[in-house]
Amino acid sequence: MTKERLYLFDTTLRDGAQTTGVEFSLEDKLAIAKLLDGIGIDYIEGGYPGANVIDTEFFAKERTRNAKFVAFGMTKRAGRSVDNDPGLQDLLQSKASAICYVSKAWDHQVKLALGISTKENLDSLRQSVEAAIASGREAYVDCEHFFDGYKANRSYALDCVKTAMDAGARWVVLCDTNGGTLPAEVEEIVADVLSVAPGDKLGIHAHDDTGQAVANSLAAVKAGVRQIQGTLNGLGERCGNANLVTLIPTLVLKDSLAERFETGVSPEQLQSLTHVSRAFDEILNRAPNRQAPYVGASAFATKAGIHASAIAKDPSTYEHVAPESVGNERAIMVSQQAGKSNLLTTLKRFGIVMEKDDPKLNMLLRHVKEREARGYSYDGAEASFVLLAHKLLGTLPEFFKVTSYRAAVERRFNAKGELVTVSEAVVKIDVDGAEYMSVAEGNGPVNALDVALRKDLGKYSQVIDDLELVDFKVRILDGGTGAVTRVLIESRDDTGDRWFTVGVSPNIIDASFEALYESFTYKLMKTKTRL
Amino acid sequence: MTKERLYLFDTTLRDGAQTTGVEFSLEDKLAIAKLLDGIGIDYIEGGYPGANVIDTEFFAKERTRNAKFVAFGMTKRAGRSVDNDPGLQDLLQSKASAICYVSKAWDHQVKLALGISTKENLDSLRQSVEAAIASGREAYVDCEHFFDGYKANRSYALDCVKTAMDAGARWVVLCDTNGGTLPAEVEEIVADVLSVAPGDKLGIHAHDDTGQAVANSLAAVKAGVRQIQGTLNGLGERCGNANLVTLIPTLVLKDSLAERFETGVSPEQLQSLTHVSRAFDEILNRAPNRQAPYVGASAFATKAGIHASAIAKDPSTYEHVAPESVGNERAIMVSQQAGKSNLLTTLKRFGIVMEKDDPKLNMLLRHVKEREARGYSYDGAEASFVLLAHKLLGTLPEFFKVTSYRAAVERRFNAKGELVTVSEAVVKIDVDGAEYMSVAEGNGPVNALDVALRKDLGKYSQVIDDLELVDFKVRILDGGTGAVTRVLIESRDDTGDRWFTVGVSPNIIDASFEALYESFTYKLMKTKTRL
Repeated sequence: MTKERLYLFDTTLRDGAQTTGVEFSLEDKLAIAKLLDGIGIDYIEGGYPGANVIDTEFFAKERTRNAKFVAFGMTKRAGRSVDNDPGLQDLLQSKASAICYVSKAWDHQVKLALGISTKENLDSLRQSVEAAIASGREAYVDCEHFFDGYKANRSYALDCVKTAMDAGARWVVLCDTNGGTLPAEVEEIVADVLSVAPGDKLGIHAHDDTGQAVANSLAAVKAGVRQIQGTLNGLGERCGNANLVTLIPTLVLKDSLAERFETGVSPEQLQSLTHVSRAFDEILNRAPNRQAPYVGASAFATKAGIHASAIAKDPSTYEHVAPESVGNERAIMVSQQAGKSNLLTTLKRFGIVMEKDDPKLNMLLRHVKEREARGYSYDGAEASFVLLAHKLLGTLPEFFKVTSYRAAVERRFNAKGELVTVSEAVVKIDVDGAEYMSVAEGNGPVNALDVALRKDLGKYSQVIDDLELVDFKVRILDGGTGAVTRVLIESRDDTGDRWFTVGVSPNIIDASFEALYESFTYKLMKTKTRL
Repeated sequence: MTKERLYLFDTTLRDGAQTTGVEFSLEDKLAIAKLLDGIGIDYIEGGYPGANVIDTEFFAKERTRNAKFVAFGMTKRAGRSVDNDPGLQDLLQSKASAICYVSKAWDHQVKLALGISTKENLDSLRQSVEAAIASGREAYVDCEHFFDGYKANRSYALDCVKTAMDAGARWVVLCDTNGGTLPAEVEEIVADVLSVAPGDKLGIHAHDDTGQAVANSLAAVKAGVRQIQGTLNGLGERCGNANLVTLIPTLVLKDSLAERFETGVSPEQLQSLTHVSRAFDEILNRAPNRQAPYVGASAFATKAGIHASAIAKDPSTYEHVAPESVGNERAIMVSQQAGKSNLLTTLKRFGIVMEKDDPKLNMLLRHVKEREARGYSYDGAEASFVLLAHKLLGTLPEFFKVTSYRAAVERRFNAKGELVTVSEAVVKIDVDGAEYMSVAEGNGPVNALDVALRKDLGKYSQVIDDLELVDFKVRILDGGTGAVTRVLIESRDDTGDRWFTVGVSPNIIDASFEALYESFTYKLMKTKTRL
């Protein structure tokens, strides 16, 4: 049986830009388009030329090599001619090779939001599609509010699809704009749309407002559509769009889908998916979602010892696909529940090869368990675990020694009668016998210690220049201010690496300092050994 | 048509505890069980008595009032009698009113992971279910690997279901352990299971490895099951379990489901869902997911100007359900009216009665919003909110004033050459014009401040005798050690009351001190006014 082709349409740069807190620079857009263009996406919607300077500039050149480069915009305004509509002209003057129009398919919205008649709306749609085609471009139509529109007025919603088809649109996309439609409804409604349009000209645009954007997309494919719109990491307005990073491996790796369909994504491109997802988060400057399907750091992580030992016998036990197929890796957590096979796997990942019966492995396991009983947690702090292993194996250089430190916070009224808080830290370190003493003020005691520590690290000062503390988490174990404190620090550097270190002490400053010290040491270690 | 009852089964405290980086303390478990018990969940699985000290302690008492309190564990080991299996005895000696057994339903796994025969596995299952029932408890069975098992050996998978049913299990739960099954398969397989068991004794346990845990749960309900297992905020191993916070409003608010089914969640309980989801994140000490369906801060946020103006005309334009129905709010054009009624409800709960048109209410709302913009979060710190209200209303007595404080931490080698860390705090306070100055050492700077503060509070010293700090959480907003810190302190006293206070500052000590000061003040206030 020949497979049917499924087309992937990315709208990260358009609908994704609607995400709260997200604003793409031109550089961001170029980098994201390049990521998308490299993984076999068929269509890349770049934004809305004319809507703002960045989008207009972005569309001044063709920005993709493999994917079709798509401009998004509204259909012609009612009461104007195509030539006389500046918005439409911006689209036609862009360097896009296809234009995707948004057009309302819910009569109520046409009247309410646009204030025009349903017939004027269809006329605009037809003329706009024809104008795109006349300019030598492909024309696509996003039918906004399609599912709600269909439920309210089936005949008008279908008229919109038919009008776009008759005008020559290559794709008509059924949009669940409010994201509230359930998979069973999507399937039923799409089946009915097939009465006016062939499935290989229909697409689906789903939102995640009920947590089912992926399922809605697949339900539409099951019913007949052959194009899926989505975004990287599910970016998008409100709860986001269908997540292409989840959909792609599902389409390629799941037998029931892969037997019927093929996409433009090759097995090699699929293997770069984890990288693409995380690189995209780097561009957004946000921590990757550890629980993300397929590509999350925890997607193939196992904590329970009993599961871990079963995985060692047969990975399919707790893995629905092979982690390597999407460029991810098995992460068997080092934790109280874990045993030796967990440790071996983690060590190997960090380049430490050990035999299963090496007595040092027992020693390491004993240390891990003993330290976890004291409050350490290595399942979130692998860098600290690697340092512990190197230390026990005698392969951890002592880059620098902290002789003493002092941190003080004082709140008082100053000479002007204002309430002020001052933090100051003094750090004394020893690098190869040479002593360095630094003092610094900071926003708080940990910041002051961080600033003091990096003020002069002797010969290592340059190495830690790009070390940045990204996040800092404090957990009090067993409650109260007198209890044990666990501090987890997330760090990064210019190579894009991120690592986690942990510190534990009844004293919050001491715990923070330990995690800080370990982060610095890990950075020095990884620079030295190219970990 | 009478509606069919759907039952909700929460496994946050069991499967959720498998999440990377999550470790629940006993205090956490108590707080989470209370949250769950308040929103109409039918079953709360509390963990695995016997597996560790915390779970055993948690099961030493009945911990729920409304929901059934469920213990989780393995079926009897092959080759041992029920009486002679310590794991099973731990379950039977717990204070749970129901026992949920996990039992493998994939023959390959039975042989590989357990190393026993398929018949031995069924025997253990039957005897374990019978033992639970004989002890006066309900018995449930989680059929692990059910869907993969069914695909590999349909007949054995169905035998497992039948064996559990015949032994008298109240529920048999079909688990998609690896999370790789697609909704269409779930629907098809569940339909077949109905040949050996009635739907009202079947449940579904889905994981999010293809981003479809919610869709898989609903597909199973469509096919006939009547129990859904899931977790708060989708916590759980790897990519997490089905998210009950997403499922509940979908079941209650979506016509196609609400017409057929009813749950134990009342409309009022549904309105507390956003609060519950965020309070749970507070316990986990993690930032709530802004894009979470229904309860995320962005779930009803609109960025596009064009959408915003349409929403002003008709909210249904871009909202699939009313944000108030789940206790969330529209993030654009914050409706002063909606905001106000939230405040009024909370104030009333703390004995502050105000009229809706009182100008002071506007002032309070403005203050709350302004402070939340600076990093305060009153969602998890109602005591601080009450103090803020009293302060603005002029009804907050100034019990004591802090003139100044100082906290210092020093790590150095002592005279004996040992590395020691010393924390010392000095606090100067003013009670009705009398000055008290105290100095104390502590485990850390915050503990030292706490000890110094309670050392002499003048005439209030006795009142705060039973004040205890139970938990202390630190969240760094916007990352890095230089960023703003939010500290949340949970306190309690001998009356059994618990209250949460919040402090915000770039300085962790300052933020802690603010929360500490507010906790003391709240204790004095509540003692004075019998809040």
